[in-house]
Amino acid sequence: MEQIMDNLSRLAIHTITTKQWDFPTACQKFATGGVRGMGIWRQWLEGRSLEESKTLLDDHGLEAVSLVRGGFFVSTDPVKRQAALDDNRRCLDEAQAVGAPQVVLVCGAEPGVPLVEARKQITEGIAALIDHAQALGVILAIEPLHPLYADCRSAVNTVGQANDLMDQLNSPLVGVAVDVYHVWWDPDLEQQLQRAGERICGFHVCDWKTPTEDLLNDRGLMGEGCIDIPRIRSWVEATGFQGWNEVEIFSNRWWATDPDTYLSKIKEAYINHV
Amino acid sequence: MEQIMDNLSRLAIHTITTKQWDFPTACQKFATGGVRGMGIWRQWLEGRSLEESKTLLDDHGLEAVSLVRGGFFVSTDPVKRQAALDDNRRCLDEAQAVGAPQVVLVCGAEPGVPLVEARKQITEGIAALIDHAQALGVILAIEPLHPLYADCRSAVNTVGQANDLMDQLNSPLVGVAVDVYHVWWDPDLEQQLQRAGERICGFHVCDWKTPTEDLLNDRGLMGEGCIDIPRIRSWVEATGFQGWNEVEIFSNRWWATDPDTYLSKIKEAYINHV
Repeated sequence: MEQIMDNLSRLAIHTITTKQWDFPTACQKFATGGVRGMGIWRQWLEGRSLEESKTLLDDHGLEAVSLVRGGFFVSTDPVKRQAALDDNRRCLDEAQAVGAPQVVLVCGAEPGVPLVEARKQITEGIAALIDHAQALGVILAIEPLHPLYADCRSAVNTVGQANDLMDQLNSPLVGVAVDVYHVWWDPDLEQQLQRAGERICGFHVCDWKTPTEDLLNDRGLMGEGCIDIPRIRSWVEATGFQGWNEVEIFSNRWWATDPDTYLSKIKEAYINHV
Repeated sequence: MEQIMDNLSRLAIHTITTKQWDFPTACQKFATGGVRGMGIWRQWLEGRSLEESKTLLDDHGLEAVSLVRGGFFVSTDPVKRQAALDDNRRCLDEAQAVGAPQVVLVCGAEPGVPLVEARKQITEGIAALIDHAQALGVILAIEPLHPLYADCRSAVNTVGQANDLMDQLNSPLVGVAVDVYHVWWDPDLEQQLQRAGERICGFHVCDWKTPTEDLLNDRGLMGEGCIDIPRIRSWVEATGFQGWNEVEIFSNRWWATDPDTYLSKIKEAYINHV
C-alpha cells in the first residue's frame, strides 16, 4: 500500500500555482512556510539578472526543481520552428544559471499541422537540443499533456508515447515529467511508468475536478477531485524515483483567494492527498 | 490515399444532431433531404409506441442505424447498477423493435469510484447483457469516450481498451463504435483499429474545434476542426467496415441555427470532409 506523505521535505511548488506572488515574494513565502523546492516559470525570472535570481533562491534555502516551459516545437512555419529552437536553448541556459536540473517541455501542436507531422517536428526539435542540453547538464523533460490539448498544445499525450520518443532519441538528457492531471485516466499508465523507469525526472500533482469548468484554469487542489494521487505516486516511486512532488495548479478559483491561506491549504492537501 | 465521399448513401444522422426536430419531423426532413440512416436517441422514441416509430421509419425509407445510449454501468450503489442493467435490457428491446442493429454504450464513470473498480463494473455490466443481446440479435457497441470524460461519463477511453474488453468478453454480440471526436488524438489509433477489425460496428463523425468552448456541447461540423476524418475512415475501412457514417454533433452553436440550413451544411460537410 502506498504511504501518505508525512513531511514537506519533497514538496515543491510552481510559481504559477501562487501566481499572485512575484519571484522575491514567492521565495520569501515558500521559505517561511517550509517549502524547499520551487518549479520556476520563466516569466518569474524576468526583471533581474539570472545571478540575482539564483542568489534569491540560495538566500532562502530554496532549490530550483524545474524550469517551465520549453518546447513548442510545432508550426507550419519553419522560421517559427527555428525561433523555438533558439528559445529552447536560452531556456536551457537559464535553467543551468538558476540551478534547475530540467526544462519541462510542452511539446507543441497546431490545428493546421497533422498529428503525424507534429510528432515528427517534436522528435526533430528535441533531437536538435540534445547537444546543448548535454553541454549544460540540463535534462529535457517531455511532459505528455492530456489528450484534451492535442489540438493546440501538445501532440504528445501519453506516457507510452513519451517512452517511444525517449527510446528513439536514446539520450540520458531526455526524460519524462509525469503530471497526474494529464495521465491519470490512462488504462496503460502503471505499465508505461514502469517502462519509463529511471527516465522519470519529474512528478507533478494537482487534481481533476468534476465538473471541470474551464479547459485550462480549473484544476483542483489535491483531494478536490477524482485522481488517486497516492496510487500513481506509488507507481512512480516503484521505478526508484525519489525526487520532488511538484504542485502545479492553474485555477482561476484559487488565484482569486488569499495566497497565504492558499499556501497553508496546499501544504495540508499535500500531507493528506499526495 | 483515402477517397472522399461522392454520395450520401452511407450518411446517417443522429437525432440529437438536429435536436430541434422531433421524431416525425426528423423522419420527414431526413427522407426529403436524401438521408437514409438515422441514429436514434431514446428520447425520440417517447410519446408513441415502438411499432408506430418503426412504421414512421419504414414509411420514410429510413434505416435505424443505432440506438443511443445504453451503458452507465458504474455506481457506488448496487441498486443503481442493477437498475442500469434493467434499463439496458429495455434499451436492447427498443433497438430490436425499431430495427436498430446496435445499442451504443456510454460505459459510465463516477468521481467516487476508482478507475480500476469502474472498469470492473463495466466489464461485469456488459457481460450480464450478452444473453439478452444474443436473444434479440442486437450488438452491444462499446464507445470509447475521450479521456476528458473519464471522471464522470466513461472509464473506457481508448480503442485499445475497448479491444481488451472485447477480447475478455469474447462474444460476437460485443463490438466497438468509433467516434472520431473521442479517439482522433490517439497515437496508437491505426494499430488498435486494425486490431479491432471486424468488431468495429459503428463510425461516428464530427470535428474538434480550437478553441473548444464547452466540454460537452461545442463539437464542430466536419471540416470546422482539426480531425483528419478521411484518414481515420480509411483505417476503419481497411478492416472491411462498410457501414454507416453517423453524424453525431452536440453543439449549442449549431442548435441555435435554422435546422433546414444546418441539414444542407451537414450534407455538404459530409461530401467534402468525411
